[in-house]
Amino acid sequence: MVNETQHTCSASSSSRSDGGSSSGSESSKDNSRCSTPVLDADRHERLREKMRRRQDAGDKWFSLEFFPPRTANAAVNLISRFDRMGAGGPLFIDVTWHPAGDPGSDKETSSMIIANTAVNYCGLETILHMTCCNQTRDDITGHLQKAKRLGLKNIMALRGDPTGEEWEEEVDGFNYAVDLVKHIRNEFDDYFDICVAGYPKGHPEAESYEADLRHLKEKVFAGADFIITQLFFRPETFLKFMKDCQAMGITCPIIPGIFPIQGYHSLRQLVKLSKLEVPQEIKDVIEPIKDNDAAIRNYGVELAVSMCRELLDSGLVHGLHFYTLNREVATTEVLKRLGIWKEDPRRPLPWAVSAHPKRRVEDVRPIFWASRPKSYIYRTQEWDDFPNGRWGNSSSPAFGELKDYYLFYLKSKSPREELLKMWGEELTGEESVFEVFTCYITGEPNRNGYKVTCMPWNDDPLATETNLLKDQLEKVNRRGILTINSQPNINGKPSTDPIVGWGPSGGYVFQKAYLEFFTSSEIVTALLKVLKKYELRVNYHIVNVKGQNITNAPDLQPNAVTWGIFPGREIIQPTVVDPVSFLSWKDEAFALWIEQWAKLYEEESPSRMIIQYIHDNYYLVNLVDNDFPLENCLWQVVEDTFELLN
Amino acid sequence: MVNETQHTCSASSSSRSDGGSSSGSESSKDNSRCSTPVLDADRHERLREKMRRRQDAGDKWFSLEFFPPRTANAAVNLISRFDRMGAGGPLFIDVTWHPAGDPGSDKETSSMIIANTAVNYCGLETILHMTCCNQTRDDITGHLQKAKRLGLKNIMALRGDPTGEEWEEEVDGFNYAVDLVKHIRNEFDDYFDICVAGYPKGHPEAESYEADLRHLKEKVFAGADFIITQLFFRPETFLKFMKDCQAMGITCPIIPGIFPIQGYHSLRQLVKLSKLEVPQEIKDVIEPIKDNDAAIRNYGVELAVSMCRELLDSGLVHGLHFYTLNREVATTEVLKRLGIWKEDPRRPLPWAVSAHPKRRVEDVRPIFWASRPKSYIYRTQEWDDFPNGRWGNSSSPAFGELKDYYLFYLKSKSPREELLKMWGEELTGEESVFEVFTCYITGEPNRNGYKVTCMPWNDDPLATETNLLKDQLEKVNRRGILTINSQPNINGKPSTDPIVGWGPSGGYVFQKAYLEFFTSSEIVTALLKVLKKYELRVNYHIVNVKGQNITNAPDLQPNAVTWGIFPGREIIQPTVVDPVSFLSWKDEAFALWIEQWAKLYEEESPSRMIIQYIHDNYYLVNLVDNDFPLENCLWQVVEDTFELLN
Repeated sequence: MVNETQHTCSASSSSRSDGGSSSGSESSKDNSRCSTPVLDADRHERLREKMRRRQDAGDKWFSLEFFPPRTANAAVNLISRFDRMGAGGPLFIDVTWHPAGDPGSDKETSSMIIANTAVNYCGLETILHMTCCNQTRDDITGHLQKAKRLGLKNIMALRGDPTGEEWEEEVDGFNYAVDLVKHIRNEFDDYFDICVAGYPKGHPEAESYEADLRHLKEKVFAGADFIITQLFFRPETFLKFMKDCQAMGITCPIIPGIFPIQGYHSLRQLVKLSKLEVPQEIKDVIEPIKDNDAAIRNYGVELAVSMCRELLDSGLVHGLHFYTLNREVATTEVLKRLGIWKEDPRRPLPWAVSAHPKRRVEDVRPIFWASRPKSYIYRTQEWDDFPNGRWGNSSSPAFGELKDYYLFYLKSKSPREELLKMWGEELTGEESVFEVFTCYITGEPNRNGYKVTCMPWNDDPLATETNLLKDQLEKVNRRGILTINSQPNINGKPSTDPIVGWGPSGGYVFQKAYLEFFTSSEIVTALLKVLKKYELRVNYHIVNVKGQNITNAPDLQPNAVTWGIFPGREIIQPTVVDPVSFLSWKDEAFALWIEQWAKLYEEESPSRMIIQYIHDNYYLVNLVDNDFPLENCLWQVVEDTFELLN
Repeated sequence: MVNETQHTCSASSSSRSDGGSSSGSESSKDNSRCSTPVLDADRHERLREKMRRRQDAGDKWFSLEFFPPRTANAAVNLISRFDRMGAGGPLFIDVTWHPAGDPGSDKETSSMIIANTAVNYCGLETILHMTCCNQTRDDITGHLQKAKRLGLKNIMALRGDPTGEEWEEEVDGFNYAVDLVKHIRNEFDDYFDICVAGYPKGHPEAESYEADLRHLKEKVFAGADFIITQLFFRPETFLKFMKDCQAMGITCPIIPGIFPIQGYHSLRQLVKLSKLEVPQEIKDVIEPIKDNDAAIRNYGVELAVSMCRELLDSGLVHGLHFYTLNREVATTEVLKRLGIWKEDPRRPLPWAVSAHPKRRVEDVRPIFWASRPKSYIYRTQEWDDFPNGRWGNSSSPAFGELKDYYLFYLKSKSPREELLKMWGEELTGEESVFEVFTCYITGEPNRNGYKVTCMPWNDDPLATETNLLKDQLEKVNRRGILTINSQPNINGKPSTDPIVGWGPSGGYVFQKAYLEFFTSSEIVTALLKVLKKYELRVNYHIVNVKGQNITNAPDLQPNAVTWGIFPGREIIQPTVVDPVSFLSWKDEAFALWIEQWAKLYEEESPSRMIIQYIHDNYYLVNLVDNDFPLENCLWQVVEDTFELLN
């Protein structure tokens, strides 16, 4: 009777779910490390498995296509867009390959680097397009090796447009996408998931629709895992194509490419490139309103929604692929109206998990980079192993040096003029700096009427969680405790709590109260006297730019400040205050005063000298209240310090 | 100003306290593992460092000397004595070397194995005596290598009594203890701490008191770390000796050997062996009461207490070494009256830490062996690494097979007759077994008037913590839920809590409720139906002797059921319910029915067949309630199961 029950397992089946998907060279190392508890299967699946699982569950999904930007500034904006659109839960995004734009280079605008940013820094499952025509075998292999090294796991294999007027097949060369598919499978075995393009109307250069279907079948049989189609204007176009594919024996997923019309000119350009014909009924609507962008976009959204509904209702379509043209509004609107935009407040961990296969075991980070996760990922990108569960001897390798630091992660997203409006055209003393911090906390406009929506240490407005501490933060910033990071104490809230929850449901999350700030040496002197009273309760690290460091942390051990208890699992402690990495963070935190703030002003100007003075003389302080079940005592510590000073 | 403060540290001082004391070959491995948070410095210090630290702190300490027993039964009793006397907090114990008794062999009564048991199974800092005269260099090296392999770190280097009437020095042989000291330092460098013997009255064979002091100085200068003296009867004897040593330039610790007189005959025998003279004032007291053991012991305690007081008051003595003669009462009495017997209710971890240097990193164990810690240590003795913090792929190596199992850890400490009185001379059915379990829980006498003070799975009476669950346990055992292990849920009690606390002060400890029992397949069928209602809340493992296993544990992951949050540290999770090791425990748990219980009865007898039936047909079940902040639901689960059955 007992054997009929589910969940039966035997002693011999000690294989774990993370064992199977281990990617080659890393598996031997895995054995010598503590393994990480599997919080969500998602982190360990490859794209085709995710697709299959969603389909089996009857779950509808979507994906988003972007092209690489032209300038570094546009790249910064695109990455913000990745973050915002990533919040809606795309199954993957893909980045197109621009042969003319040196797509495999290390430029911040190359296809390779944009895809790298998406997977590593934004934590998005990412497909990198790659074309093969007019390229050498070595070039192609080199690109693929680089993609693998960067943690990319999915390739869209394309022929690409031949350069020059007349195109001739090269013998033994890469003439068609199928050659690239074969090459990837030959050279990289099963490492990559491969996607290929399908043409619902047939490829414009194909002899016939039927011949094109045969080419598609070849690509699939050569090892492609799924198909994304060219855009089309009528749902029946796709549905016919899909049935024809199935009739040919193509059984892999076929994902329709959706193009929400967003403007007259972009439509015309796309049509020209893709050699598609716009149906008359669409032309009839658009021509009269061609100068009214808003009207066209509304029409485009309407049209896309109704086409997507028809596709999904057919029961044949499980996922929709969107050609976003790097724009946000139309696609997001379509997705929201379809009800498949899913902002899931549940986080697997309290910080965004990187999608790099090497980092999949990562489940602990120092709290210091909480507002600068991309910087943390960047500075730890060369690590061979990621600490899981515990920070210790093995897990405090050197952080990447600040001087190697990728330019645009140290620079603010906002332009200089905007920053000057927020942080002051002219500073008159340390107090004007206190005011900037205070305005950022309160959300009130500054004396010139501008809201302070970012700070050098925080690219975004205050986190919801930090809002819980707003009143106290305001009070202390006014008096020169310049806070840059904090969290309230939490004593066992459900893991599904919309503000502080994370991890699987049924668990409980905890936090120790944390406060991090810059302050003057005068305040530090008083603070240290006050801290003597709190010796057992409060752990502190106090450091200045020269690295003079005062702490009561026992043996440089990390202090877990966020942890979760879940059903049937070991304890997860994803955030620590780590004394060793604090000294790396210190360099970055002090550098931001200069790089983002002081450099807004002329050299030798009083404003610049004020920031420089703070940089040279202030201390960076962090405090942890270990008594998480009691009321947070850190405000009392600060209060006592101010009292001592008076 | 800031630099004057304590606790200053710099980025470069990333060495950790556990790095320095790493013992040779293991250090390279350490780097590839997560390091364990240092809970107490004690675990990582060597004996001479502990001694120095206690002396610097002005702390008085004591140590205990034992000799190896003659029989296996006596060995079992001696080990219980180690556990009981270990509770008083000796700095170390030492085990004498009996050349006639094959002291380096694997017999359970050999000096080597008794010392091994003390260090590994009882977690006691242990010194193994070793003599060198009449032994070959190879024999001695072999003994030392074996001692090192077993985790022994301290040797008392002695000459030993020559065999035969006439003793002649061997050229290049081991003629004196100093030869052994030199040999240890030559062959094992600084691995061992070395102790040597001092004779407050001079060695009986020495030419003179002064010559003997010179010999002692040679031993110290050859590399001995401290001195333990022969017994003496007057405090001034020791104090003079100590001053004479210091005058000679001997600066290492000198520990007086204290012999509480416990009986007339043992005193006479010891005096004969040691060639000491009993002072007339002692003889005068003892002779008249020589047949009154109690009176002699009282006098001996009185005498020892007053002598120890005088020694400690001199300010020259920091530790006292007791010749226990393997007895408990007199020494314990002296120690309690001196106020240096320190039963410290604080535990560094919820289970006793093994003193083996290899196991010093161990900080997580499966809950199953909670009442059989020695068995767990035995079965994991061949592990190269101990899981710290997490159980995972790397940390579930094969447990030692049951068949290799060291006899006396599977046998009960109690003799057969006693067990029969407790567990029943004759069983009449499964109900008589239920009764035995119930009597063990309640502490009430069984139907024949005997208290059940142990069970095959529990050598000792119910733990204080289990007492919290007594009423519920009684109820369920009466009805055939035969509990062998349980713990209540705890939601953040102070780490200093006398019942459930452990670890450094200032922390908070937590537990998930746990219940483990044997029960019939009929009850299991009902239980499984009930458990469906508790699917998300309760994790279960249900297994029979054949290994048919039902569980809802996700991916065979361990479930942390005891954890602690401490100031300035990562989270410690010392107890887990581990699905993989549960199947090893299952073998042991079922075997105990047969080895300890069934075999009390004649083959083919009805009593034996009842136990055999239970062994063959019952299931071993464990349940964890993951909702530790709520009221324990496991009793409700059992209640629902009984209801379903009715």
